[in-house]
Amino acid sequence: MATEDTGGDTVIDLNADLGEGFGRWRLTDDEALLSVVSSANVACGFHAGDPSTMRRVCAAAAERGVVIGAQVSYRDLAGFGRRAMDVPAGELADEVAYQIGALRVFAETARARVAYVKPHGALYNRTVRDTEQAGAVVAGVLLAGGGLPVLGLPGSSLLRAAGEAGLPAVTEAFADRGYTPDGTLVPRREPGAVLHEPGAVVDRALGIALRATVTAAGGRPVAVSARSLCLHGDTPGAADLARRVRRALEEAGVRIGAFA
Amino acid sequence: MATEDTGGDTVIDLNADLGEGFGRWRLTDDEALLSVVSSANVACGFHAGDPSTMRRVCAAAAERGVVIGAQVSYRDLAGFGRRAMDVPAGELADEVAYQIGALRVFAETARARVAYVKPHGALYNRTVRDTEQAGAVVAGVLLAGGGLPVLGLPGSSLLRAAGEAGLPAVTEAFADRGYTPDGTLVPRREPGAVLHEPGAVVDRALGIALRATVTAAGGRPVAVSARSLCLHGDTPGAADLARRVRRALEEAGVRIGAFA
Amino acid sequence: MATEDTGGDTVIDLNADLGEGFGRWRLTDDEALLSVVSSANVACGFHAGDPSTMRRVCAAAAERGVVIGAQVSYRDLAGFGRRAMDVPAGELADEVAYQIGALRVFAETARARVAYVKPHGALYNRTVRDTEQAGAVVAGVLLAGGGLPVLGLPGSSLLRAAGEAGLPAVTEAFADRGYTPDGTLVPRREPGAVLHEPGAVVDRALGIALRATVTAAGGRPVAVSARSLCLHGDTPGAADLARRVRRALEEAGVRIGAFA
Amino acid sequence: MATEDTGGDTVIDLNADLGEGFGRWRLTDDEALLSVVSSANVACGFHAGDPSTMRRVCAAAAERGVVIGAQVSYRDLAGFGRRAMDVPAGELADEVAYQIGALRVFAETARARVAYVKPHGALYNRTVRDTEQAGAVVAGVLLAGGGLPVLGLPGSSLLRAAGEAGLPAVTEAFADRGYTPDGTLVPRREPGAVLHEPGAVVDRALGIALRATVTAAGGRPVAVSARSLCLHGDTPGAADLARRVRRALEEAGVRIGAFA
Repeated sequence: MATEDTGGDTVIDLNADLGEGFGRWRLTDDEALLSVVSSANVACGFHAGDPSTMRRVCAAAAERGVVIGAQVSYRDLAGFGRRAMDVPAGELADEVAYQIGALRVFAETARARVAYVKPHGALYNRTVRDTEQAGAVVAGVLLAGGGLPVLGLPGSSLLRAAGEAGLPAVTEAFADRGYTPDGTLVPRREPGAVLHEPGAVVDRALGIALRATVTAAGGRPVAVSARSLCLHGDTPGAADLARRVRRALEEAGVRIGAFA
Repeated sequence: MATEDTGGDTVIDLNADLGEGFGRWRLTDDEALLSVVSSANVACGFHAGDPSTMRRVCAAAAERGVVIGAQVSYRDLAGFGRRAMDVPAGELADEVAYQIGALRVFAETARARVAYVKPHGALYNRTVRDTEQAGAVVAGVLLAGGGLPVLGLPGSSLLRAAGEAGLPAVTEAFADRGYTPDGTLVPRREPGAVLHEPGAVVDRALGIALRATVTAAGGRPVAVSARSLCLHGDTPGAADLARRVRRALEEAGVRIGAFA
Repeated sequence: MATEDTGGDTVIDLNADLGEGFGRWRLTDDEALLSVVSSANVACGFHAGDPSTMRRVCAAAAERGVVIGAQVSYRDLAGFGRRAMDVPAGELADEVAYQIGALRVFAETARARVAYVKPHGALYNRTVRDTEQAGAVVAGVLLAGGGLPVLGLPGSSLLRAAGEAGLPAVTEAFADRGYTPDGTLVPRREPGAVLHEPGAVVDRALGIALRATVTAAGGRPVAVSARSLCLHGDTPGAADLARRVRRALEEAGVRIGAFA
Repeated sequence: MATEDTGGDTVIDLNADLGEGFGRWRLTDDEALLSVVSSANVACGFHAGDPSTMRRVCAAAAERGVVIGAQVSYRDLAGFGRRAMDVPAGELADEVAYQIGALRVFAETARARVAYVKPHGALYNRTVRDTEQAGAVVAGVLLAGGGLPVLGLPGSSLLRAAGEAGLPAVTEAFADRGYTPDGTLVPRREPGAVLHEPGAVVDRALGIALRATVTAAGGRPVAVSARSLCLHGDTPGAADLARRVRRALEEAGVRIGAFA
């Protein structure tokens, strides 16, 4: 069973990317999403996230009891961290540690802490299979200290490297993404990569939380084990859909609870 | 007396800017300077200082027992932080805190800590008199927590704001800069702003450490009280001159000791 | 009379800032505004404006016969070019020329050309009175060649410097800003700086175009001579209001026509 | 025969990367190299090269009759353009065009012109085999107009794409790099990738220019056809070695002449 079962209680975490503006530009509806999620992946300045936004999001998260995570990225404002980069492992580790450290100041000033790490965009995708960069991200988390959990895709190089390094490896699933029959995500360029119909997204969320199962492209059920469910917040209507997912989960008896 | 007198012992700190390269570019001779100074002002990525350089400099400083300080700056790689910017106070405070947090990761991974803060370049110069930005820097230090000392010019708005906020305000003087009869620095664009002759620099250092006095432009002695002496490391021969200053101080019975 | 009178014909230019997104972030409603204005101030990458956005906006402007201008800025993505910077004059001139050159590629590939230059944000405000930076902007325009007109505030150092350098100096006025009794803009921090009521904005536009007059804070009419009217496009409803201004001008017999 | 033979005359171009500083940081000895090379690959601001440096290098090149080329790069100051990036083709083309346009201003103000394009670092290496990015670079050159020649490795996807687009495809070779028996470069991580011994570099240069042949790793001669010879300028002694190569070529009767 994907979710934690604490005394008959089914628990799942809801996470979303927050603070993804930069200076004059806004993207995510941070206030709305913070009233829905249990974990906030806060951008740390490399793909998005200026210091003032980081402070504001940390303060608002702490106020609502939402757990703060460092959403670390390649250094790529122009590409929003969505372009894979061949960063040498040592440099990448240092860049990850830098971002975690910067975010910590704002978490701590809000009397909270950075409680986990999740890579963003191209770094997330690349560390699914690239063992060198996966190791570099984990090395950066270790440099930053505190034994922080790493949030990622089940079966990814990233979670394997985290586990081997003694860090908690936390799995997540996506309510709005298509899955292949072997349980991986349908690539974004293929049809069926993203679910747009709200009802389908809600159903998928329920399937993951209650049965650890999604219906793959093709129609067969496939096992998808996840302690956290990732919701998206950068499109119009995203906050509404996130709220709907949460309500449906709660009505089905699932408790929303952070993993960290 | 400018320097600390602990049981007949005259003590002065030697500080220098380190880690002021960025990626492929190097500037400061970090290794050489770390064998001379007692405090290292480490660039934090806003005017210079990539994460890998920050890690390396912190590790090398910690190894030699050199105290680590955050050299915070305006966000201005293209201008090396030397162009004053009208950054709103709140943003500036957040940017200062961000930089301190990022550096902390690398200090702590070297089993050391960020022990003080010194503004760089245009931010240093501007906070001599600009009370709003001086307050913003201090607000950023407070955000970062830990009650860090602030290093700056005697009589500056920055040190006044630090003192009012309950932070240790530490004074510094410059062995290679000209002073006006009222004890401020000769502006860089005027003649006599910078001392180039090594003997004159050494004499000035001795005057500051032993007699809290320099000879101003015009020939009169003027009181210059300082707990720390700033040495420069970004010109050819700088490390040699720094070494010479240190030797002369030690031969005159001055003990080199960090303030933090 | 503020506007050009060509054979009984009253003509005014409408300009707006366009292409002010960056990578993933959008800000201005470029498509909507291009159907309203006669001149497009295209961001060139220093405060906003990635190369792909620049190409798209130039292509769309050229298609509609909208004249393309280079909206040059301080190098400040984090601050959206809204923070005054003490950039040395030589560097500033080179930065201005660099931006014009970059934009030219995209104007020319759309079979159009960069036809004028307008500084953005803090650079616009600073060059109202700062003669050194005003001179630097003009020096940058001269470096870029082609004798480009400069668009700015009547009476500004910028327009004076442009005129002295033999460049056409084109005046603009703001339909949505408050004016002081001596014809300058009410500073943004003061009450009455910005007009929010659509009807008031339309009235102001008509007053400028037809009578070269606005009603200042205090109630007295003040002369405001302008060949171009600046419309804003970065707020919700901005495109609608711009459309309304244009319609009112046309209904009053004013012809909308670019100056360049 | 690799080099051009114009009436019994053997001609080769010498090119080097110039202007690779940024703001306060310097790297290449531009003055010294400009007295040696016939073509200057000028950095355009994406991996190095601030506007003032671009202007200075263009002016100095034009003064000496050295031909100016745009050394275009990924947007990556932190990595000096040495980290391959998965930039979508359309964006990459626009970024290439942007850089060419920016450089043009400074070439033209020096009464010269941008006469060719050469990708830098990771973009150079990637476009040897990556047909999509090679096509994107060529698309960017086409966007910039003027039918500019592209300088690259013989047999590369880049030169093939340039040729197919009707752009002159100009081959270059490296006097200080090891070659494999099939005429490609020994990868930088392998032994023998870089020749350090000055005499060996000079011999290789002569072999390329006079016999279109180098001795590969293993000892066999291999054909290396090149219209231009790339010299490096970012290491101590580089300018001296470049001078020595030029002298040896001239003494062997080879004329140094730009291709563009």
